[in-house]
Amino acid sequence: MASFDLKEAAQLLADELEQQKFGEAPETLYAPLRYILSLGGKRLRPALTLLGCYLFDDDYKKAIDPAIGVEVFHNFTLMHDDIMDEAPLRRGKMTVHEKWNSNVAILSGDVMFVRSYEYISNVEDKILRQALALFNKCAAEVCEGQQFDMDFEERETVGEEEYIEMIRLKTAVLIGFALRLGALIGGATDEQSKVVEEFGVNVGLGFQLKDDILDVYADQDKFGKQVGGDIISNKKTLMLIKALKQAEGADAVELQNWLEAKDFDKEEKVAAVTDIYNRLGIREMATEKSNEYFTKGFAALENLDVSEDRKNLLKEFGVYLQNRDH
Amino acid sequence: MASFDLKEAAQLLADELEQQKFGEAPETLYAPLRYILSLGGKRLRPALTLLGCYLFDDDYKKAIDPAIGVEVFHNFTLMHDDIMDEAPLRRGKMTVHEKWNSNVAILSGDVMFVRSYEYISNVEDKILRQALALFNKCAAEVCEGQQFDMDFEERETVGEEEYIEMIRLKTAVLIGFALRLGALIGGATDEQSKVVEEFGVNVGLGFQLKDDILDVYADQDKFGKQVGGDIISNKKTLMLIKALKQAEGADAVELQNWLEAKDFDKEEKVAAVTDIYNRLGIREMATEKSNEYFTKGFAALENLDVSEDRKNLLKEFGVYLQNRDH
Repeated sequence: MASFDLKEAAQLLADELEQQKFGEAPETLYAPLRYILSLGGKRLRPALTLLGCYLFDDDYKKAIDPAIGVEVFHNFTLMHDDIMDEAPLRRGKMTVHEKWNSNVAILSGDVMFVRSYEYISNVEDKILRQALALFNKCAAEVCEGQQFDMDFEERETVGEEEYIEMIRLKTAVLIGFALRLGALIGGATDEQSKVVEEFGVNVGLGFQLKDDILDVYADQDKFGKQVGGDIISNKKTLMLIKALKQAEGADAVELQNWLEAKDFDKEEKVAAVTDIYNRLGIREMATEKSNEYFTKGFAALENLDVSEDRKNLLKEFGVYLQNRDH
Repeated sequence: MASFDLKEAAQLLADELEQQKFGEAPETLYAPLRYILSLGGKRLRPALTLLGCYLFDDDYKKAIDPAIGVEVFHNFTLMHDDIMDEAPLRRGKMTVHEKWNSNVAILSGDVMFVRSYEYISNVEDKILRQALALFNKCAAEVCEGQQFDMDFEERETVGEEEYIEMIRLKTAVLIGFALRLGALIGGATDEQSKVVEEFGVNVGLGFQLKDDILDVYADQDKFGKQVGGDIISNKKTLMLIKALKQAEGADAVELQNWLEAKDFDKEEKVAAVTDIYNRLGIREMATEKSNEYFTKGFAALENLDVSEDRKNLLKEFGVYLQNRDH
C-alpha cells in the first residue's frame, strides 16, 4: 500500500544528495558545494516536492531529481546570503566564505545555481516549460526578497505590509514552488498545482513569522541560533515594526534608546527589548498574524480535490510548522 | 533578398537590449543589471547567435530573445568576475561593486543569471531541452574556467595545456554555445550545430590568445585597457608560460626578478618583460598558436553543408577576430 512519511522522504533525499557528484574539477569550485550540502538541515523543501508529487501519484520517487534541484537552489541562496550577511557560521559550522573565501563562495554558488536548473529540468517534456517558468519566477523573487531585506537594513522605517512582502519573496515562494513543482510532476492539473502552491506560500509566511517569534522566545537549549539575534541586530521584523507602532511614553523612549545604542551588553538588550515586547503583547500579535497565514493555507486545501488522507499529509506538515518550538 | 551583417545584428541587439525591462523592484537589484548592460561592448556573442541562426534560416530575428539571454549571461559573469578581480573599471566606467557594493553585485548578478535562463528558454519546444542542456553545460564550464583562473594565480607554475584548457572553459565555450544555439534555432541538425560550435570554440581560443598578445603589443591609443596589464599582474598567460620555459641565463634571471619584484615602476616592468619576450620570440610563438586555432576553426567549416556565401560570414568573422589590432 502506498504511503508517505515526510521524515522518511527527507532521509531518502539526504541519502540521494550524498551520492551526487555535482562536478569534478576544479576542486575549489565543487568542494564548497558538497560541503554546504553536507551540513545537513531538515531537507524540508525537497521533501515537500516529493510530498507534492505523492498527492497525485504514488510513485513520488520520480520527483527526486527535481527535489534535489530545489535543495541545491536553497543551499546556493544560503551560500550567497552568508557572504552578504558576513555570517561566520551556518548550522554550527564555518560558512563557505570563512572556510575558503568570498570569491570561492560567489563562484561555487553560481555553479550550484546551474546544477539546480539541471536537476529541476529532469521532468517530463510536457511540464518542462512550465517547471522552468515557475522556477525562474521563484528564483528571481528570492533574489528580490533578499535585496529588499538588505535595503530594509538601511532604512529608518519599514511598513508591516512591506515586511510581509519581503518574507513572501525571500522565503515563502520557494516553499510554494517546491510543492507545486512536485504536484505537476505527479500529474496535477495547473489549477490543482496552484492550490498546492497557495497552501505552500501561506504556510511559508506563517513559518517565517513563527521563526521571528522563536528568535525572541525560543528555549536557548533547543534553538539552533542565538536567541535574540534579531533584537541584537535591530532587524525590522514584524515584531519590531509592531512594537514601534504600539509603544508609547516610557516604552517608546526605552525602545528607541536600545535601537540607537552603540555599545551595549547583548543579553541586557535582549532582556530589555523582550520585556517591552511582553508589556505590549507583541508575541500574541505576531502569533495571531502567523496563525492567520496558517489558517489561510489550510483553507486553500478545501479547494483541493485529492483524497482526505493525502490532504492530511499537507495539514500535518502545516501543523508541525505551526507548533514547533525551536 | 536575405542578407546578414554582423555589425547591423549587433546594433539591432543593442536596441533590443535597451527596450527590455528585466524587472521592477527593488531598484537596487535591477538598476545594476541595466547599468552594466548600458556600458555597451561589441555585443559579439549575441550577434553570433543571430548569425548562427541565419546560417540555416533567413529569419534570424527569431533568435533575438535567446541572443539577449547570451548577452545577459555574459554580463552576469563580468559582474561577478569584477568583484572577484576587485576591478575598479569596466569599459571605462565604474564597476557595479564600486558604484554600489559587492552585495548588490552578487545579487544583481544572480538575478541576471535567472533572466538569461528566461531569454534562452524562449525557443521552440522541440529544441528547448537541448538548448537548456547546452546552456547548463556552458554555464558550468564558464564557472570552472573562472575558478581555474583564480586557482592559477595562487600556483607557482601552470602548464601550457592547463592554460589552454582554462581559456577554453572561461571564454571559448560561450562563443561556441552562442553560435550553436543560434544554429539550432535556425533548424540545424544536431550534427550541423556541432560543427558550428567547433568553429566557435576554436576561434574563441584563437581570440583569447590574440587578446593576450594585444595585452602586451597593442597600441595604447587604440587599446581599451592598460597595455601590459597582464605583465604587471604576473598573469600566467601562454606568453609568460612560454617565456619561463624558453628563457636561459641572464634572461631567465631578469624575468624571475621582475616576477618577484614587489615595488616596481609599472612602465619599467612592462618595457623590460616585453624586451625579454622580444628576445625570445614569444610574440611569434603565441601568434602561431593563436593562428593554429583559427585555422582549426576554419577547417571545421569544410564539414558544414550550408551555402558558401553564408559560410563566408563565419569565415569573415574569424578573420576579423584574427586581424584585429585592439
